[in-house]
Amino acid sequence: MQRSDAAEESFPIRRLQISDKNKGFIELLNQLSLSDSISDQEFQSRFQDLTSHGDDHMICVIEDDQSHKIIATGSIFIEKKFLRNCGKAGHIEDVVVDSNIRGKSLGKKIIRYLSEHARSVGCYKVILDCSIENKGFYEKCGFKEKSIQMATYFD
Amino acid sequence: MQRSDAAEESFPIRRLQISDKNKGFIELLNQLSLSDSISDQEFQSRFQDLTSHGDDHMICVIEDDQSHKIIATGSIFIEKKFLRNCGKAGHIEDVVVDSNIRGKSLGKKIIRYLSEHARSVGCYKVILDCSIENKGFYEKCGFKEKSIQMATYFD
Repeated sequence: MQRSDAAEESFPIRRLQISDKNKGFIELLNQLSLSDSISDQEFQSRFQDLTSHGDDHMICVIEDDQSHKIIATGSIFIEKKFLRNCGKAGHIEDVVVDSNIRGKSLGKKIIRYLSEHARSVGCYKVILDCSIENKGFYEKCGFKEKSIQMATYFD
Repeated sequence: MQRSDAAEESFPIRRLQISDKNKGFIELLNQLSLSDSISDQEFQSRFQDLTSHGDDHMICVIEDDQSHKIIATGSIFIEKKFLRNCGKAGHIEDVVVDSNIRGKSLGKKIIRYLSEHARSVGCYKVILDCSIENKGFYEKCGFKEKSIQMATYFD
């Protein structure tokens, strides 16, 4: 999809709303990792659980004002520690930009929005895990490689 | 410090208690990252905030039954996602074993305890970030290298 620079300006970023389920939010996440369908009730329940954490959990989205589809998203949760004088760390997760709409700096917009959120609530750092292929992108967003991620999968 | 195998058996693992501040818990964390002193009020406030999350946040400790000092700790928080059918991911953080008491498999005990917690609350995975030097240790705990960690520090 080709769009003019003027059109690019009109991609506002905002918090996830419960109505975004009907705007392709789950289908967008499926570009990251395939899920079965999520019922409206499951979605509502998880949405309410997450929003109950206030600023300690936030999912942001970008809605295409032409198609009214959600075309980019990312989440952050704020971890409260005893370490670093009862410090807080922001963890960015589940960042995805619609594969049909690349090259519009939407990913960078998402990361900046989430990082600014972390800073505004007093985090001393914001971290994320990514593949080596995405390292360059995150470096452009001001991140530096810090360590390695290890994982155990139960299923 | 040399201890017999019999003594090693007597290192029970349990959740952090508010009284652990007076048992060297903060001093142990200082081996990971230096903090200023934390007041009793700050500690209580953070403790109550974290325990309000129930099983979604847990700090475990091992207390030396001879010195009554906290000699090992680790934390886990449960991230709730929309991804993976409203899946949950366990994030392990701030693992430290007293540098005076190494070689007793206390680190492995901490990781197993935290991982089992993640499994018991229905996580599909448990993840952590570590230095390349600690990769071998986490592999022995059943973890595999998955990706890289990127970070931005605000201070």
